[in-house]
Amino acid sequence: MSQNEDSLNVFFNPKSIAIFGASDSFRFGYSMTKYLLNSTFKTYPININKEEIFGHKVYKNINEVNDKVDLAIIIVPNDNVLQAVKDSVEKGVGGIIIETAGFAETGIEKYIKIQNEIEKISKDTKTRIIGPNCVGVTNFKNKFTTTEIDFDEELIDGSISVIAQSGVLGNIFIDWAASQKIAFAKTITLGNKVDIDEIDMLEYLENDPETKVITLYLEGVKRGNEFISILKRITKPLIILKNGRSEISSKAVKSHTGSIAGNDTIYEAIFNQFPGIYRVKNFYEMFDIAQAFATQPLPRGKNIAIITASGSLGALACDEIENAGLKLARLSESTIQEIKDVSPNWTSVKNPVDLGPSMFNTFRPSLNALVNDDNVNALLFIFAVPRKPLEMFSLSVKPFLRDMRNYIKKTGKPIIICVYGSRWVLDFFLTDIYKYRIPVLTRIDHAVLALKTMFDYQVIKGSKN
Amino acid sequence: MSQNEDSLNVFFNPKSIAIFGASDSFRFGYSMTKYLLNSTFKTYPININKEEIFGHKVYKNINEVNDKVDLAIIIVPNDNVLQAVKDSVEKGVGGIIIETAGFAETGIEKYIKIQNEIEKISKDTKTRIIGPNCVGVTNFKNKFTTTEIDFDEELIDGSISVIAQSGVLGNIFIDWAASQKIAFAKTITLGNKVDIDEIDMLEYLENDPETKVITLYLEGVKRGNEFISILKRITKPLIILKNGRSEISSKAVKSHTGSIAGNDTIYEAIFNQFPGIYRVKNFYEMFDIAQAFATQPLPRGKNIAIITASGSLGALACDEIENAGLKLARLSESTIQEIKDVSPNWTSVKNPVDLGPSMFNTFRPSLNALVNDDNVNALLFIFAVPRKPLEMFSLSVKPFLRDMRNYIKKTGKPIIICVYGSRWVLDFFLTDIYKYRIPVLTRIDHAVLALKTMFDYQVIKGSKN
Repeated sequence: MSQNEDSLNVFFNPKSIAIFGASDSFRFGYSMTKYLLNSTFKTYPININKEEIFGHKVYKNINEVNDKVDLAIIIVPNDNVLQAVKDSVEKGVGGIIIETAGFAETGIEKYIKIQNEIEKISKDTKTRIIGPNCVGVTNFKNKFTTTEIDFDEELIDGSISVIAQSGVLGNIFIDWAASQKIAFAKTITLGNKVDIDEIDMLEYLENDPETKVITLYLEGVKRGNEFISILKRITKPLIILKNGRSEISSKAVKSHTGSIAGNDTIYEAIFNQFPGIYRVKNFYEMFDIAQAFATQPLPRGKNIAIITASGSLGALACDEIENAGLKLARLSESTIQEIKDVSPNWTSVKNPVDLGPSMFNTFRPSLNALVNDDNVNALLFIFAVPRKPLEMFSLSVKPFLRDMRNYIKKTGKPIIICVYGSRWVLDFFLTDIYKYRIPVLTRIDHAVLALKTMFDYQVIKGSKN
Repeated sequence: MSQNEDSLNVFFNPKSIAIFGASDSFRFGYSMTKYLLNSTFKTYPININKEEIFGHKVYKNINEVNDKVDLAIIIVPNDNVLQAVKDSVEKGVGGIIIETAGFAETGIEKYIKIQNEIEKISKDTKTRIIGPNCVGVTNFKNKFTTTEIDFDEELIDGSISVIAQSGVLGNIFIDWAASQKIAFAKTITLGNKVDIDEIDMLEYLENDPETKVITLYLEGVKRGNEFISILKRITKPLIILKNGRSEISSKAVKSHTGSIAGNDTIYEAIFNQFPGIYRVKNFYEMFDIAQAFATQPLPRGKNIAIITASGSLGALACDEIENAGLKLARLSESTIQEIKDVSPNWTSVKNPVDLGPSMFNTFRPSLNALVNDDNVNALLFIFAVPRKPLEMFSLSVKPFLRDMRNYIKKTGKPIIICVYGSRWVLDFFLTDIYKYRIPVLTRIDHAVLALKTMFDYQVIKGSKN
């Protein structure tokens, strides 16, 4: 284990925690404090104005804690942060997460200076620091979090990790992704980056056995050369969302985390230079593609089969496949015959396979024929059936998912499901889907982009072996 | 009222209906039959093999019905459709909807011939026909439907109308849109178009007082000159999704509804030629933009203000605004001062206005300042707050929506809300939103595109007046 890795472990697996500014009143950090105090992580609340919080003794200062403290989380007002950092370092903590905002990003001299002092402390000591102006980390394996994530909701642990400059990814998109049964390994928000930055974390996640695919939301990079160097070394698929494409956005970024977004053309060139790195246009694209990487085998060719009950959506998917540079699989004669055998006699079978209203009877044999066709490298299942018929046939649909998982295992071909319709229909699919590890997306363009990205990645990996 | 309008009314406001192939077993048309028989619409089930369905007497043939029949709905197998059409015409119905598939789209001689015979009947008589190979119509005002829509779910009537070639829009996307509180006036699916086509329906909806904005999903056009002529005449905003951009998609379309997609470049040129017609890339874009048109005033300038608690999403929105050719509003000094007065003293206020974690206290005065700023033409509210804090502050958020509606009325400036996060957070916004008629979208790019489209439309309308 490298020195970097070793020093970062404390953020994801702390044995004991101190929270500066812990409070039982409704404010930023309330949910986290409550969660950690009731968790199995040994947690020491620190607050000069309180005696007790949620039935736990409160300490006036970290030096009163008669125990080793691994990690300090700081949520006190910005004017009091520097002292909390000093106290934590003196106590000998391994890591500090400063969540408080109001530093370099304000553009105010006084707060820029304080941030610089904190930066100096991190350089002069062994203590590693995340932040300020962030929401810290979450480790989905051991359910440790410094964010406002609700572990009561059905959060499942998976193999996607997230590095992000800012809080929206630490909380909001984790919530969204959880609703979609997208499962994470670790998430990290970096804020103003006085010490730990995306380069440290990329290195850490590259070696993290829980992480299979890395997503990075970037506003700007301070250590350009080291950034390029880590992009060169990384072997896991890396999906990057960077804003600041436009000039007005660059300015907005500056006042947000104090980063310089820099010339977007340069970033674009750097991302294009290294195989296995994919730039996306928004958060949904990022997580949909990551989800496909995390759960599906890589397609060994460009030939996609589409199976659906909607001729319109099938036709729209063709446009996406052609746009993406993939191909519509040419089905073998025996596949066509197998599907014809179970379809109304006037059906003309070709790819996309449009099963129409008969799909509840014809889906399983058709799926079987398609996955076993040598001309097919990946399958897109576009489900578009109204709620009422689905309710009637729900018992026959559930086994589809198990079938699909078995085919994926047996044939090594990826399957992505796109579901259209009401909330009820989507939920029907999502309820058990994580058991079967098949992505359920709501957009065909994302599904096709995911298959394209995975195919490209397969080409690189193939050539490396 | 034109002859066309007059003859089409029967599809949306029939006094009496016959259903050929009505059945109480689980198959296509089951939900519709059950719904109509239990509705206030006088409904006569016709089925040679049944005596009674859901407690209603079944007729062997339509000529046994001792009443005038306005509209016949046909869901019998394709081989029996021609006879049902003949019987209906003889009975003197005003309209027929043929939902059954298996005609010209199969490419089989026999079924092409039957379709041609049906087409001839429609030409030789006054009876108007929709279909075959469709799911007919829905009128949200009187809750009349020939589709599988579930009127039990909270379907609200609104001012968006939909014309579509195929069933996915008649059922699936109506379900989806209902989940998002997107409200419709009328939806029509056309199928293989032996008689009624998009031109007839565009004319009808242009004059329909319930319809404020028209969405059209197109696979191909048969009457090219008349299509161009109606595009020229139409004054309502018209949002078009056309597939078949790619060659493989064109082929898929042909076997779906028998339409010739035609050269996409020609369509593109035609759509660009007429102001007020906007081509979109997918269904979500189509309905998100339509929703903005249906509920918001048109922006009178390009200057957008962004208010959010997420600096990252604010910055990403800037990229979208620049891409779309809109502008980030330059806030007036007094607006900046009003927001500063309520914000933490180190906050630097500019557009995008990033309220951060203090948003629950600062939102209302900030909103007030922004909407009343003469430099602001439209407002984008990007909400990204995790569930837990939102639960705590929910009582203070609800009045935001009422405030916003009042501002829209008072200032004539449009507001669009984008919500990020978990299902719970989205539902929190959607629960009452239809009362306030403000679009709640989940994608910033769609919100910005909607504002751009509405601004463009305003420019045309302004120049016409």
